[in-house]
Amino acid sequence: MVIALLTDFGTSDYFVAAMKGKILTLCPDARIVDITHDIEPQNVRSAAFLLNACFRDFPHGTIFVVVVDPGVGSGRRPVLVQTEKYFFVAPDNGVLSFVLDHSTFEDFRIIELANKKYLAESVSQTFHGRDIFAPVAAYLAKGVNPTTFGPAIAELVRIEIPKLHRISDYELAGEVIHIDHYGNLITNLTRDELSDEFWLDVNGRKISRHCKHYAEAGEGEVFSIFGSAGFLEISVNFGSAKDILVAEVGQKVLVRH
Amino acid sequence: MVIALLTDFGTSDYFVAAMKGKILTLCPDARIVDITHDIEPQNVRSAAFLLNACFRDFPHGTIFVVVVDPGVGSGRRPVLVQTEKYFFVAPDNGVLSFVLDHSTFEDFRIIELANKKYLAESVSQTFHGRDIFAPVAAYLAKGVNPTTFGPAIAELVRIEIPKLHRISDYELAGEVIHIDHYGNLITNLTRDELSDEFWLDVNGRKISRHCKHYAEAGEGEVFSIFGSAGFLEISVNFGSAKDILVAEVGQKVLVRH
Amino acid sequence: MVIALLTDFGTSDYFVAAMKGKILTLCPDARIVDITHDIEPQNVRSAAFLLNACFRDFPHGTIFVVVVDPGVGSGRRPVLVQTEKYFFVAPDNGVLSFVLDHSTFEDFRIIELANKKYLAESVSQTFHGRDIFAPVAAYLAKGVNPTTFGPAIAELVRIEIPKLHRISDYELAGEVIHIDHYGNLITNLTRDELSDEFWLDVNGRKISRHCKHYAEAGEGEVFSIFGSAGFLEISVNFGSAKDILVAEVGQKVLVRH
Repeated sequence: MVIALLTDFGTSDYFVAAMKGKILTLCPDARIVDITHDIEPQNVRSAAFLLNACFRDFPHGTIFVVVVDPGVGSGRRPVLVQTEKYFFVAPDNGVLSFVLDHSTFEDFRIIELANKKYLAESVSQTFHGRDIFAPVAAYLAKGVNPTTFGPAIAELVRIEIPKLHRISDYELAGEVIHIDHYGNLITNLTRDELSDEFWLDVNGRKISRHCKHYAEAGEGEVFSIFGSAGFLEISVNFGSAKDILVAEVGQKVLVRH
Repeated sequence: MVIALLTDFGTSDYFVAAMKGKILTLCPDARIVDITHDIEPQNVRSAAFLLNACFRDFPHGTIFVVVVDPGVGSGRRPVLVQTEKYFFVAPDNGVLSFVLDHSTFEDFRIIELANKKYLAESVSQTFHGRDIFAPVAAYLAKGVNPTTFGPAIAELVRIEIPKLHRISDYELAGEVIHIDHYGNLITNLTRDELSDEFWLDVNGRKISRHCKHYAEAGEGEVFSIFGSAGFLEISVNFGSAKDILVAEVGQKVLVRH
Repeated sequence: MVIALLTDFGTSDYFVAAMKGKILTLCPDARIVDITHDIEPQNVRSAAFLLNACFRDFPHGTIFVVVVDPGVGSGRRPVLVQTEKYFFVAPDNGVLSFVLDHSTFEDFRIIELANKKYLAESVSQTFHGRDIFAPVAAYLAKGVNPTTFGPAIAELVRIEIPKLHRISDYELAGEVIHIDHYGNLITNLTRDELSDEFWLDVNGRKISRHCKHYAEAGEGEVFSIFGSAGFLEISVNFGSAKDILVAEVGQKVLVRH
């Protein structure tokens, strides 16, 4: 059984190791995969985006453990969400919002992780990754029935997904929702909203070049491209769009047809 | 068998891969787990702290391979330490001091890694991670008897663990022994030394708020909290105590009751 | 079967996770090992060096997946190279040049990855790591015959390996081909070209100390040493040669006998 970890714990501390140690103690056969541990500290939205961008690539039955958890130790609930194909173990703080956005509440089951039998003997108030989420994932991987972890609950905390705004028949406003390792700006625009001919306005800079692959553009040229997460991206061949356009997450992107 | 790696090799080079390749060549079934490779180069004390913070979470029988090794190729001995539950393979430079601090020498066995049969055919003088520690871990995982790796030895090099100093009946001086990924300052103070009411003095700044979980404090507020490694930490909700207090490892922390 | 990944994807994005998810979906028993994902973006030469420095340490049969791929989506071919002991799956952009440099073309087989049966149903033009290289590696690990992935091809794109230049009977010019995590400067000089007595000239700075291990030098002293990748390195004990000599990859290193 694959257990995939997504946290903001970084890789220079003992946090991730402690989770893996706990998992392997309880379920020696678990196959642990790191999604990333380099989420900006406490950035729930960023974790929600990255999880959504890759969870479909994993085998059915994968248990995703998502620990970006500024509310650890407070009243926020630890939950298990079971969908048709996957399990998600996480704090109830909205981090699953993008993954579950296209589902209705009938499509999945939510369990509050309340059964102390499946948690660490002594649960700290600062590290539920080790004391709650890792043990639950390990027991799930061992075949424990989801309903035994606690009571079913009806709703999850949601974070708002940035929406597009139609300004006129010819103008649409989107925004940058993620900036990747290469400095590509991932927007919330998809093919569905865009005609064959469009250009972008970012901070007054016009971007009219649209490419199908990166090497199509000249070195240093700014262009748009449909990226691998399904969204329109703004890129620079052999360069960083983030640096050249001085952009951050939330940057408005105006589309003109 | 789990083999857990802790080094200062970083993750941008071939060093960790070479160790993993060697291990899997000799023991294809080994389950390799990375603790971290981002120890500050040659910082034996930092590695000793992190190992101590997580080794108990691993399954019994885990083989820990700890390579922070400024003396590689010199006269320092490579050793294997067997405790009741775990194996540790490391240079004899003090990196196991915190892990073994609460044990007496009767509680564990120390072997010098001298038997060339279990090392690389040609041992370099610059990379014992690949040429000594990885092969020994792999053979251990395969079931080779610890005593066959070399002669028993009686003592290990130790590094001093920062001690608390009692200044008066009301004052105790500790220090910061680790700064984590979030900028939390981990001190060497534990619950045992602290009454229910205390406040801290760090560089003349008074910290009187004590929280049970992070979200209890206001955003940006400085507070103390008992952390997941068992020590008192100084934290800032949605912020970095390291940055706000301009603190480094070794920073004195005065406790007043 | 071991699948070893070497990319410039970084570890803060969904790219590596998507590849691992795909591999485990198709081949649940694959043992995935990360070489590194921290290659400088689009630096094919750096990836070629690192792969060459560690591939021999891996078990026979290992499948190396190398994705540093500025030409993704363009006409550059995706290839599989089978040598006597290993498989390499990569874009045909020179990234395998160092690994294959000592082989003749009779020693290995090159296959173009053209058979759509073994690729993702829908192949993007921006992420062949997920859509081509990961699935092919997974099918290979499952035992699919290399020749079924596509037609044999005769030659690969090559990048030039920096050569030494003999200036006189007493002088030889090499260069820095890699700078490691510690700031050690790895040159293209090997034992074969060096007599027992030599000294180096780097930017007019004379380096006459040669050590067999790092701790032999005084703290902060600059010296040369034969490193674990088989090349002469320039190092500083408890310091960074890169910083002290203000060196970059490509820095000329003059040897005088």
